Amino acid sequence: PALTGSALGSVNPDLASERQTASFCVERLTALLDGGAEQTRIRRAVVEAIESDPVFSRENQYFQTQNERYEAAVRKAVHLQKKMHEMGWTENGPEYKYIYRALSGDVAFLLHRVFMRSISVLGSDKQVAKWIPLATQHKLIGSYAQTELGHGTYLQGLETTAVFDTATQEFILNTPKISAMKWWPGDMGRSATHTVVFAQLYIHGKCYGIHPFILQIRSLQDHSLCPGITAGDIGPKMNFEHTDNGYLLLKSVRIPRENMLSKFCEVRPDGTYVRQGSQQINYFTMTTVRISLISDEVLTPFMKACTIAIRYSVVRRQSKLKPGEQEAKILDYQTQQEKLLPQLAAAYAFHFTNNYLQELFNRGYAEIHRKNFDMLPELHALSSGFKAVITQHCTAGVEICLRACGGHGYSLLSGLPSLYTKILASCIYEGENTILLLQTARFLIKCFMAASAGQPVPPSVTYLAAMKHGKCPAKNKLDFLSPDIYIEAYQHAAVRLTSNTAAKLQDLIQSGVKKHDAWNQCTVQLVQAAKAHCHYIAVKNFAETVEKLETKAGIQKIMKHLCDLFALHGIFSNTGAFLHDGYTSAAQMDMVTASYLDLLAVIRKDAVPLVDAFDFTDKCLNSALGSYDGQVYQRLYEWAQKSPTNQMSPAYERYLKPLLHNTLSKL
Amino acid sequence: PALTGSALGSVNPDLASERQTASFCVERLTALLDGGAEQTRIRRAVVEAIESDPVFSRENQYFQTQNERYEAAVRKAVHLQKKMHEMGWTENGPEYKYIYRALSGDVAFLLHRVFMRSISVLGSDKQVAKWIPLATQHKLIGSYAQTELGHGTYLQGLETTAVFDTATQEFILNTPKISAMKWWPGDMGRSATHTVVFAQLYIHGKCYGIHPFILQIRSLQDHSLCPGITAGDIGPKMNFEHTDNGYLLLKSVRIPRENMLSKFCEVRPDGTYVRQGSQQINYFTMTTVRISLISDEVLTPFMKACTIAIRYSVVRRQSKLKPGEQEAKILDYQTQQEKLLPQLAAAYAFHFTNNYLQELFNRGYAEIHRKNFDMLPELHALSSGFKAVITQHCTAGVEICLRACGGHGYSLLSGLPSLYTKILASCIYEGENTILLLQTARFLIKCFMAASAGQPVPPSVTYLAAMKHGKCPAKNKLDFLSPDIYIEAYQHAAVRLTSNTAAKLQDLIQSGVKKHDAWNQCTVQLVQAAKAHCHYIAVKNFAETVEKLETKAGIQKIMKHLCDLFALHGIFSNTGAFLHDGYTSAAQMDMVTASYLDLLAVIRKDAVPLVDAFDFTDKCLNSALGSYDGQVYQRLYEWAQKSPTNQMSPAYERYLKPLLHNTLSKL
Repeated sequence: PALTGSALGSVNPDLASERQTASFCVERLTALLDGGAEQTRIRRAVVEAIESDPVFSRENQYFQTQNERYEAAVRKAVHLQKKMHEMGWTENGPEYKYIYRALSGDVAFLLHRVFMRSISVLGSDKQVAKWIPLATQHKLIGSYAQTELGHGTYLQGLETTAVFDTATQEFILNTPKISAMKWWPGDMGRSATHTVVFAQLYIHGKCYGIHPFILQIRSLQDHSLCPGITAGDIGPKMNFEHTDNGYLLLKSVRIPRENMLSKFCEVRPDGTYVRQGSQQINYFTMTTVRISLISDEVLTPFMKACTIAIRYSVVRRQSKLKPGEQEAKILDYQTQQEKLLPQLAAAYAFHFTNNYLQELFNRGYAEIHRKNFDMLPELHALSSGFKAVITQHCTAGVEICLRACGGHGYSLLSGLPSLYTKILASCIYEGENTILLLQTARFLIKCFMAASAGQPVPPSVTYLAAMKHGKCPAKNKLDFLSPDIYIEAYQHAAVRLTSNTAAKLQDLIQSGVKKHDAWNQCTVQLVQAAKAHCHYIAVKNFAETVEKLETKAGIQKIMKHLCDLFALHGIFSNTGAFLHDGYTSAAQMDMVTASYLDLLAVIRKDAVPLVDAFDFTDKCLNSALGSYDGQVYQRLYEWAQKSPTNQMSPAYERYLKPLLHNTLSKL
Repeated sequence: PALTGSALGSVNPDLASERQTASFCVERLTALLDGGAEQTRIRRAVVEAIESDPVFSRENQYFQTQNERYEAAVRKAVHLQKKMHEMGWTENGPEYKYIYRALSGDVAFLLHRVFMRSISVLGSDKQVAKWIPLATQHKLIGSYAQTELGHGTYLQGLETTAVFDTATQEFILNTPKISAMKWWPGDMGRSATHTVVFAQLYIHGKCYGIHPFILQIRSLQDHSLCPGITAGDIGPKMNFEHTDNGYLLLKSVRIPRENMLSKFCEVRPDGTYVRQGSQQINYFTMTTVRISLISDEVLTPFMKACTIAIRYSVVRRQSKLKPGEQEAKILDYQTQQEKLLPQLAAAYAFHFTNNYLQELFNRGYAEIHRKNFDMLPELHALSSGFKAVITQHCTAGVEICLRACGGHGYSLLSGLPSLYTKILASCIYEGENTILLLQTARFLIKCFMAASAGQPVPPSVTYLAAMKHGKCPAKNKLDFLSPDIYIEAYQHAAVRLTSNTAAKLQDLIQSGVKKHDAWNQCTVQLVQAAKAHCHYIAVKNFAETVEKLETKAGIQKIMKHLCDLFALHGIFSNTGAFLHDGYTSAAQMDMVTASYLDLLAVIRKDAVPLVDAFDFTDKCLNSALGSYDGQVYQRLYEWAQKSPTNQMSPAYERYLKPLLHNTLSKL
């Protein structure tokens, strides 16, 4: 299996004992997560092929500079082409989706793919026929230049201009002020020869808004910058050292008329502007990206962090739980359980949320092919909301895992700092989370109003019409292990937050506040409503998933426990939302607390098998704390000795020696 | 003044306009924060002297490797000796405390000071007379080796041994297993020649527990490791690249009997163990460190983060708040205010908490000199609890500031990533936060039981005896701007959490659960009680401080607003704690929300003056986003061009060129 012991040999007995008492079959759970045993087999084959190839090694990653990381990422990207050919992997094959996970994303040319996708989606047939083969054969390296120094979220505000010159049949591209400079595009700082650049289109002095253009930025012969182009790397970031995020200044750069991507909009030779086809598909592209990043960029690192922190917490012993006994495993402390086990439950919950979103997306995609765009608003609202909620939760979760490992978690060698600094970016890119939640909230308010007026609304929000003024019927703590009880509580909270905020909004407008001001004054509460909606859907979907699981091999039982924990943790951490209007009483909240704390002790027994099921290899985790054999201290020591900080430093001869020998004055 | 504009010149008009409408005198507020105008003058003189000296420059910090950072920190530490001499600054002078802030802590030999302090506190007069002059004159470089690979929190579990050999009158030091290796001591990886090492003392086969020993680890001549010593650097961490945190293995290293620090305990030549004096002073040392780190390591970086994020948020314009108008400053969005302004309020709140702790500490210190140790338990409980609460809050706050700046916050050039990765460590070192909160909780439970039995308790916890079963008397949202109202609410919540947990603990024990198990089963709730206690004290202290402030120059008024915001934010973010037993009704909670959101709009007007008052120079902030002139985009661009990633990379010749020229197969 992929999870073989390391060179260090035998498994730490404190870790081994955790595996002997698993209440379920780990291999079956892995297959469930993968979507079937065959998928598991394919994934492991990809992992094996990648990890056995030294070019893809990440062993020295924590010791490398930004320049070294970039060079390694380019080397890997180039080598990957060869590898795929050797292995017979294709972009449409079943192996493809596992490659990125196996590489832990540590590879260049990811924006080259976005370059290709944007041409495929936004380009005319002729443009596709010209550029896609060049890109596929790597006769050019593409990037995607949208974000500017001054604008990210608000695309209409982009300041780069493309002025059509009828005389020469060219567009003249400019970044007329410093804030118009393109800033952040990946692969652009040092690698790209071409980019798709977004600019405000001007024809005969009239602005037609943002359009995409293909632009060459570097020579194909010697990689020098093309005339009128200034470009470079934006420098150090919190992570993504492997990516050359770049800047781009344009000074009267001329490109032919044919370089405007023209599937939906075209500029005729005489300057006539023609819009054709539906623009709604663009909307759909953002949805695609937001859903696809959840798995690779968010859930995988989150699951890695859970694996590292939980394995470490059964190997680390500190202080005594019972006087006179051996020091206790730190996972036996309730406070440690309360940090880590809700993260584990959330990892499973969001894995199933992701499946739900994928399924919804696939249905939406099929409908779009039938020219039916009805599902788009719901899909947009859910993908925006869940992108925000899942990235936020998992980022906080990785930080909790890091801190739960104490000082050793703070060492880069634990793997946790780089997981954190990378996942944090997911809260910002592809839509800043607050902005996204407000989009979800706008949808909720609209649907709430429609539902209140008796109009039909999409399936995920029909519940908004059904506000009941009842009370939670739970009578004892065991009742809170019933999904009906907690789903109803989540639903009630979501409806209350949405309806209260809708009422506040209406009150403000009726009292004479202008609509946009009223909206702004409600945004803090709108964000709460959007989060509550997503949380409700996630809990409901987890419970429904558990219902349908196979009852064999202990799988359903342990998933039910995790579902309960996920639900009760959410209530316990946010009691006010449930207590507010008296739906849940204080006595019931004490029952929630009791059931929640009981569950921690139950799940603690299966904690290690539950992370083993994520099936990360040691190379993939790249962590001194998280390896399968749990030989934590040996690994930290052996690894630290290889650090460049253990080479001789000039600081001794230059500063320490003169200081100690009292010869400083001679300096 | 220290806040002069940068070389870039004129102040961004969007930032300048924020300063014209200040409701208070910034300079007076700065003086208040410093503890008087004279202190401000001294601080600025130190800052000026440090920042005008190029050796102390931090300009290239974000581009440097760990090795380069270490070398620079040593250079600065050595140069600082010279500088202090030149400037006439002494360790007991008024300038001393500002040096570290002016250097942003980016300097070596901090553990050398801990080495000296531990000898001063734990050493005999003879030892002090021998070692302190050597250390002061830097004839040796000291470190402090306590933490081991396997033990941090639980000192009794340390595994390093010191066996007394009566025949030679030596101690034989060993790290008998890998987990016994010293791990983390600063200045030890590469610099130190000596260290104070903690080890289990054995005499004639009997263990006497942990004791401190002075040990030489490197030659004073050539810096080579002494016989029996293995030492080195533990490698990369999330921050602290400038510090050579080290490891240390000991193999039968012999040191003379005189090297055991023997103020409190001594081993006589025949092996007789003598304990003398009080050990309680050790307890007090930890308290000292925990209180002292709050200001330098936590509040200063937190205030920097607030300064950067708030200045950026009035310069950054994005999207339109009102149709047809200019794009809005992002600080005009309610959601952005809700992220940043509570952080600003917390920065002021904790500044005053820190003053409160300092004062308490000074009184405690005076009492100890009179051999009265009565204040120690309270001081220990408060310093532990506040260390945890403040580090936790400020770490989360810096993350919020970072994310509130979107993509630009994620660039190292914003300064925010390094503030975050550094402040995060404060949650872990000098007592892991959960452990500390449980110490506070233990004190609370003890005092609650005592108070319930009518026994006297320390002043900060007398309120525990006064549980009232009343209701919050607020009738409208303005009532929640009355400190009496919200202080009472905080007090009620703290008492309820403490008394409920005490009751649960007793119930468990009475039902037959063993005492240590019962304690463990209550720890999640005990942590909540400890936090509530600290939060109550912080709110109460802020309100009391505001009461006493000068009413002139608008100072008291703006501080009152911040106090209200701090208090109401705490309620708004944790409504369940106040709703739980019906002390606050749902209708009252809606009033809290309304008042809280109103306050955001009020404080937003003074946001920039409130961060200007922190009085950080541009060099001290070291941030492209936070400079006094607000020329954000120019700075990002100019700075990025200096990044080493804008030098030629071998990746082009090696990988990109062969790929683009289709000559890869020749490789």
